[in-house]
Amino acid sequence: MEKRKMFLPQGVQDLLIDDCLLRRKIEDQLMETFNQWGYMEISSPTLEYYDLFTEPPMLADGDNMFKMIDTNGKILVMRPDCTIPMARIVATKMKNFVYPLKLCYVENVYRIDREQSDQKREFRQAGVELFGVSSVKGDAEILVTAIESLKSLGLENLTVELGHMNFLSAFFESLELEEEAKQQILRLLEEKNITGIQEMAEIHGIQKEKARLLVRLPRMFGTPQEVLSEVKTYLLTEDMEEALEELKQTIEMVEEYGLGECLGIDLGMVSQLEYYTGVTFKGFTKDLGAIILSGGRYDKLLGKFGMDCTATGFAIVVNKLTKALKIQNNIHVPKRKHILILDTQYNIGAVKDAVDELREGGNIVEFCMLEDPDKIREYMVRRQVDELVRIKQDGNIEKIDME
Amino acid sequence: MEKRKMFLPQGVQDLLIDDCLLRRKIEDQLMETFNQWGYMEISSPTLEYYDLFTEPPMLADGDNMFKMIDTNGKILVMRPDCTIPMARIVATKMKNFVYPLKLCYVENVYRIDREQSDQKREFRQAGVELFGVSSVKGDAEILVTAIESLKSLGLENLTVELGHMNFLSAFFESLELEEEAKQQILRLLEEKNITGIQEMAEIHGIQKEKARLLVRLPRMFGTPQEVLSEVKTYLLTEDMEEALEELKQTIEMVEEYGLGECLGIDLGMVSQLEYYTGVTFKGFTKDLGAIILSGGRYDKLLGKFGMDCTATGFAIVVNKLTKALKIQNNIHVPKRKHILILDTQYNIGAVKDAVDELREGGNIVEFCMLEDPDKIREYMVRRQVDELVRIKQDGNIEKIDME
Repeated sequence: MEKRKMFLPQGVQDLLIDDCLLRRKIEDQLMETFNQWGYMEISSPTLEYYDLFTEPPMLADGDNMFKMIDTNGKILVMRPDCTIPMARIVATKMKNFVYPLKLCYVENVYRIDREQSDQKREFRQAGVELFGVSSVKGDAEILVTAIESLKSLGLENLTVELGHMNFLSAFFESLELEEEAKQQILRLLEEKNITGIQEMAEIHGIQKEKARLLVRLPRMFGTPQEVLSEVKTYLLTEDMEEALEELKQTIEMVEEYGLGECLGIDLGMVSQLEYYTGVTFKGFTKDLGAIILSGGRYDKLLGKFGMDCTATGFAIVVNKLTKALKIQNNIHVPKRKHILILDTQYNIGAVKDAVDELREGGNIVEFCMLEDPDKIREYMVRRQVDELVRIKQDGNIEKIDME
Repeated sequence: MEKRKMFLPQGVQDLLIDDCLLRRKIEDQLMETFNQWGYMEISSPTLEYYDLFTEPPMLADGDNMFKMIDTNGKILVMRPDCTIPMARIVATKMKNFVYPLKLCYVENVYRIDREQSDQKREFRQAGVELFGVSSVKGDAEILVTAIESLKSLGLENLTVELGHMNFLSAFFESLELEEEAKQQILRLLEEKNITGIQEMAEIHGIQKEKARLLVRLPRMFGTPQEVLSEVKTYLLTEDMEEALEELKQTIEMVEEYGLGECLGIDLGMVSQLEYYTGVTFKGFTKDLGAIILSGGRYDKLLGKFGMDCTATGFAIVVNKLTKALKIQNNIHVPKRKHILILDTQYNIGAVKDAVDELREGGNIVEFCMLEDPDKIREYMVRRQVDELVRIKQDGNIEKIDME
């Protein structure tokens, strides 16, 4: 076999023992929090139809998906997102459940994204979706669940910045731009490119008062108090004020719950996901330059599947969360007691009983497959074996001292 | 959106709430057993190079894989098997670990297999691999671990049938057939098509004494005692006798451990996986007509990656195991206590403390998002809510009677 076959395709990775231990601990804890908050796990397949993700208001871009032709000629993709499949499942299979419906998942998603700094193409997402709550109560519930999920793992220095799709879309509507110019400015806004936005404002003759806000947007982030009081000094439409009021109420509810200290507002927040319609948010920690959490309201998505149902949710990028917890040195998997059974003389029935007894309480209990005492000693050191035992002919367990 | 986009591609499936609960319980229990036996989880990516699986002695058939062209022009596949990626990881990244090396995994595999009765294309496999034990001790260890894993979940009527690749290959070598004829006969053997084998034996002029065994092979299964004593009445080569001796010793060790009662032998067992080299096995229960467990020795596979290391392992098909446990009515997920919090008047800090207290011990605790008492009652019935409470202004919890 050629050497290169032994390596991995671009953007995917192997997880070795320690990484898997961490991943399992993190995902178990996230799922436990989701469950305790009343969210129930469902799972969609890795393969879906291409069209599911490309018709608006779905994902912005069909180019970043792994595509293949099915044996029947249809185009399949490896799911690039979990929310759209969840919406599909709810609308086609769970209409008759009792609402509000609370669902959660842990799945892999696949994207060919050249803008990701580490060019990963296989990501693991753990998330929650709340269907059927149209009020800010739903937005606050989702934010509180997200923050509690991350805090339950000991994540420190968490900041969650909120934006509002309607604030941005109402503002852009008032600018009366052609679609192409709008998209260009949104891209500049996402890059927080103030000079670029200034130029665009001049080229397109945007009214001075509005241009002032547009140019300020990339910097319009900070504590809720700061941002909400600053934005009031600009000319706002009724829709924009309504969006701000929703943001304010959502933040107040999270504060009243007792988790307000990590919240901020970023009014220039642009989402790459076209399906968001209301409050959106992104979470990160200053210890890692990457988004760990993202979410928001998507009240129109289920309509695409013929179901009238409001929705909001979030997803945690498990790989990034793991990285942050490692950097903060805040995650430890407790070592189990590890017992090695030496040169067993098997007895019918007796061995199984003795081993079952040794395993009680979750101990790791292995049969020694080695004969050479030096190799056994090396194995014990490297696998951190705590105890060496022998099962005697009568089924009793005898401890052995290897020194 | 067209109606058909709302449905799923062929061979894949959604798992709704109850199925996910079962899957999680089953996989957690399997992983717990694997861990307690000393196996450590690792994880390979969904996407690998096509060539990894197609060069002999890899998977027999490259046609049954989901393939796609990577952005750099290379052919990728969605992993059709977990053992080959595990072997790749061990040979390229874990040579310096201490051996014997015990690894395990739970992953999805993807195959376009028209012969599967239900035509599934996405399967979930949980398995273990033992690297570096060449003796029958390793085969026995793997069998005992497999049986204990299944029994820990309460699976009943388990039968594990053992075969030996060397028995079959030594026998076929002695027949001195052309490769094409050999493959045809192997296919007939797999189908247990006795008439077909008889015809082939005549066409190819197979010696009478050998033909007698060949024709008998599809029926050469039963208890170890039955099969081992019957096969002795046939003309056997030295290699065949050696393979039988290994089988016998392996079975004796499992019997001595106390798990022999479920073992059988099937000397006509043909594996679709070309990499097996020694003892192989398949496990099933009479309550479900499908293979739940399969495994065996593959001492040559790591050589393909330039590492000289013996290996044996097994994989459990989680979907089939779940089906069997459901049929046997042997799997139940305990219900958690479920508490609904009514019309909370938020207090700074106090709510979070009260909720944290309610969640202690793993209770599900939800905020009620409904106002209408009838809807609340319906929600409580359908979500099986056990208790309705209110958090008072002073942070204390008050139980409410909804009757």
